[in-house]
Amino acid sequence: MLISAFASPLAREFHTVQSRGPGLVSSCRRSIKPISLINTLISMEYSIRPARAQDCTDIERMIMDLAVYEKMPDQVKICHKELERDGFGPNPFFQCLVAEVPQEHSSPGGHTVVGYALYFYTYSTWRGRCIYMEDLYVMPDFRGKGIGKALMATVAKVAMEQQCVRLQFSVLDWNRPSLDFYLSKGAQDLTEKEGWHFLRFDGEALEKLALEAP
Amino acid sequence: MLISAFASPLAREFHTVQSRGPGLVSSCRRSIKPISLINTLISMEYSIRPARAQDCTDIERMIMDLAVYEKMPDQVKICHKELERDGFGPNPFFQCLVAEVPQEHSSPGGHTVVGYALYFYTYSTWRGRCIYMEDLYVMPDFRGKGIGKALMATVAKVAMEQQCVRLQFSVLDWNRPSLDFYLSKGAQDLTEKEGWHFLRFDGEALEKLALEAP
Repeated sequence: MLISAFASPLAREFHTVQSRGPGLVSSCRRSIKPISLINTLISMEYSIRPARAQDCTDIERMIMDLAVYEKMPDQVKICHKELERDGFGPNPFFQCLVAEVPQEHSSPGGHTVVGYALYFYTYSTWRGRCIYMEDLYVMPDFRGKGIGKALMATVAKVAMEQQCVRLQFSVLDWNRPSLDFYLSKGAQDLTEKEGWHFLRFDGEALEKLALEAP
Repeated sequence: MLISAFASPLAREFHTVQSRGPGLVSSCRRSIKPISLINTLISMEYSIRPARAQDCTDIERMIMDLAVYEKMPDQVKICHKELERDGFGPNPFFQCLVAEVPQEHSSPGGHTVVGYALYFYTYSTWRGRCIYMEDLYVMPDFRGKGIGKALMATVAKVAMEQQCVRLQFSVLDWNRPSLDFYLSKGAQDLTEKEGWHFLRFDGEALEKLALEAP
């Protein structure tokens, strides 16, 4: 699943942020600090932090939420154990940030981890280190508070810190609100601009190709 | 740069392979073994092996060849030292395979490393481990011998060995011969089929986004 597989949640998240104008976004942003440091709250406090292995059950839950929302829950073939193995070993396949709220603001189901951004490092042979953001998700009850934007901006901050020169991701063409939001923030649509198509070998086609290796 | 930035070389490589029909492809394939093991040669022997740090000057040369071919040499901002740092440390940002020919078959310039496939691991939150192939290149004098196909198939083999469920890459829409080749091998064009667009933040837009992080 790529980032805009959850088109509407993102669209709503960002659309809400945008429609409120820069003032409130700015105010909300100031409240995004480790909880212990927050003295004044705008509407809801939350923190953004690197995921730990024990967050994988929450991440798995949100991956599935997203797939259910998209009416494709049967597409999810991994569980928290695989996420733990692949994301928290010595050579992790991905990195993850989570958004957390204090217990008193937990979801109706009692969850305090309410959003995540999952990304990994990639490489451009012209420019060097890059980051690809695979997923960006915020639970429906917690949208419109700038959490999605804070997650995305934090991924961009990590990119800068790690000397990455690009932050890349994919969006579905019918997800116009999200596309417009990203473009308004200065992203370039390389499919539109340069004609890049995204291709994939999987399943039998991948197996067959591998059999042709020397 | 993504894989089909070098549209025509790839197209020619694969088109030649295809036009020769499966018989010769198969014959060539059998010759792709470590040089010491080759007893009979069809037209040219070569081996595919993981790149070493000392190959970075060759890889840099071929990255630049490609950029010159595309009339965009000024786009290349990295050199072999950065490739060494980023690809051969304890947590490499990429992996690379090279195609090598024996000294007696070296290029007019004396090069024996004549092609490369540069890839990295990515992650699907629905399916798990994946590989993205960033570059696939064969020097013009060495095309039409199945080297490009052998490189790509070896990346697919690595993907299977590492329990990766997808091999992904990008192709320019005007690069019809390459697109058709990949589709004929069973690849799916996700931009065409599902409408995925490839987006990027870089330069000032990335810096500005990072400044919005909490």
